[in-house]
Amino acid sequence: MLFYWLNLIGIFFFTISGSLAARDKKHYHDYFGVFFTGFLTAIGGGTLRDMMLGAYPISWLSDRNILISIICAFVFTLVFKKYIVKLTRTLFLFDTVGVGIYTILGVQKSLEYHVNPFAAVILGLITAVFGGVIRDTLINEIPLIFAKEIYATACIAGAVLFTALLYANVDSNIAASISMVLIIFVRILAVKYKLALPKFDAGNETID
Amino acid sequence: MLFYWLNLIGIFFFTISGSLAARDKKHYHDYFGVFFTGFLTAIGGGTLRDMMLGAYPISWLSDRNILISIICAFVFTLVFKKYIVKLTRTLFLFDTVGVGIYTILGVQKSLEYHVNPFAAVILGLITAVFGGVIRDTLINEIPLIFAKEIYATACIAGAVLFTALLYANVDSNIAASISMVLIIFVRILAVKYKLALPKFDAGNETID
Amino acid sequence: MLFYWLNLIGIFFFTISGSLAARDKKHYHDYFGVFFTGFLTAIGGGTLRDMMLGAYPISWLSDRNILISIICAFVFTLVFKKYIVKLTRTLFLFDTVGVGIYTILGVQKSLEYHVNPFAAVILGLITAVFGGVIRDTLINEIPLIFAKEIYATACIAGAVLFTALLYANVDSNIAASISMVLIIFVRILAVKYKLALPKFDAGNETID
Repeated sequence: MLFYWLNLIGIFFFTISGSLAARDKKHYHDYFGVFFTGFLTAIGGGTLRDMMLGAYPISWLSDRNILISIICAFVFTLVFKKYIVKLTRTLFLFDTVGVGIYTILGVQKSLEYHVNPFAAVILGLITAVFGGVIRDTLINEIPLIFAKEIYATACIAGAVLFTALLYANVDSNIAASISMVLIIFVRILAVKYKLALPKFDAGNETID
Repeated sequence: MLFYWLNLIGIFFFTISGSLAARDKKHYHDYFGVFFTGFLTAIGGGTLRDMMLGAYPISWLSDRNILISIICAFVFTLVFKKYIVKLTRTLFLFDTVGVGIYTILGVQKSLEYHVNPFAAVILGLITAVFGGVIRDTLINEIPLIFAKEIYATACIAGAVLFTALLYANVDSNIAASISMVLIIFVRILAVKYKLALPKFDAGNETID
Repeated sequence: MLFYWLNLIGIFFFTISGSLAARDKKHYHDYFGVFFTGFLTAIGGGTLRDMMLGAYPISWLSDRNILISIICAFVFTLVFKKYIVKLTRTLFLFDTVGVGIYTILGVQKSLEYHVNPFAAVILGLITAVFGGVIRDTLINEIPLIFAKEIYATACIAGAVLFTALLYANVDSNIAASISMVLIIFVRILAVKYKLALPKFDAGNETID
């Protein structure tokens, strides 16, 4: 049950993140463009995960609640658009919570399909970031994940912790909660203190 | 039977649309680039739809006629390339007929797989536009769908009408024909009278 | 057995090709970005092929050795990064061997799934180039395949030869080896002698 509700909440947050990103761009100003970007951001990661696992039917094709959650989030964005002023920060927060939830959901579903633990961690990461990659590609920005890879590292840390806790027979709801908090916490800290991973320097960098 | 033939015709039109788009660009001038862009434009939408539905085998992998249709369209483009001068308009027309056909085919196949009606409409839209998104991405233009979202709205209108007619027990061939005409008609009108959806304005637009 | 080992070797080469490409770009300089680009380059083609065929489970989700091969390749890149100076040429060589192997693997697996021979050739091509397309897209370059379509033509030649040899009942290991050598040979010759396919000229080119 927890995982089912987390999915709907993640969908809600990612739809807002996608809609907000789209409405800030010239080419996406009309209602359909904003809705569609929000929609693809919300379902992108889970859809790719399910297609990779062969987990048919894909959830949003069979579960009406997911579509209702997307529409609610879109209406929420419309109603509160005037109050969401500090765009960058808001976008980041909604994206971060969505990413935290989707990472854990991705790992959990992958393990259900008997994927090996290492691959499950990677699939959790893909679930979490692919919606954002679609969003950033649609609005023609460098995907957030590649601009600040520490974000991805936060996902991986959370995914590894979640997998380890499950193998240690910790209750899955508790394991999920702890791991999500870790992801969100690390991402916020990374932004606050401008953390970055060490550079990969081979001595013949391009000079820009 | 109607749906089978419509598929072949849609493939034909989208191949031409993709080939024409590619031949206008520096990087795609050689024969292979033109053919491959036409090919991906033609099969992109249907392939993504079938992968989302888990509808294996994907049609062009098992049905030789689809590949024959693509080759015919490519040869057609080669032979008539000198007569296709007003490129933008021709590209738009071929794209529009393809989009009309694919929307209906996407909805119809989704309903066959017991997808809920709302999701079927979205899947119809994805089927119709994804080939064009691939085409526009390959040739490095803003995807047509995002530049003029009224096009997508036309698809949605047609998809909703088709779904409603089927639920009202209208014969599927008649429902499909009416809905396709609606899509093509709305798109052509939208271009002729420069229709656009209302903007999504939150008061802090980027100034370009 | 040959095909299993070829897959691991192809994975190894493509990971290096992806990592090298990423490390040359500003936005990907940190370790995670380099690893992830290498990873997606290595698994991209095979994953798309398996998703198109409905061949579940996708190999890297069930076979630990693939992930081990990727990690080995990444460590190899880290250790030897100082000696890999002539970047463009090295990248090309790793990419070429990977492409040769993946083309044949793609055709072979497609035929196993009773895809028609023409579609199998195209699927071989997609398997071979899609990882590179992801790589080039991530690092914001025009995909190599579209810049020099002669590369794709090499794949198609090898794929057709392989299919023909199998239909002529040649032993599959021998057929695979001959066809891979053909692909690698044609690609290297194409670069050395700057071969290109004839242009697709319709008389109203864009002037740049």
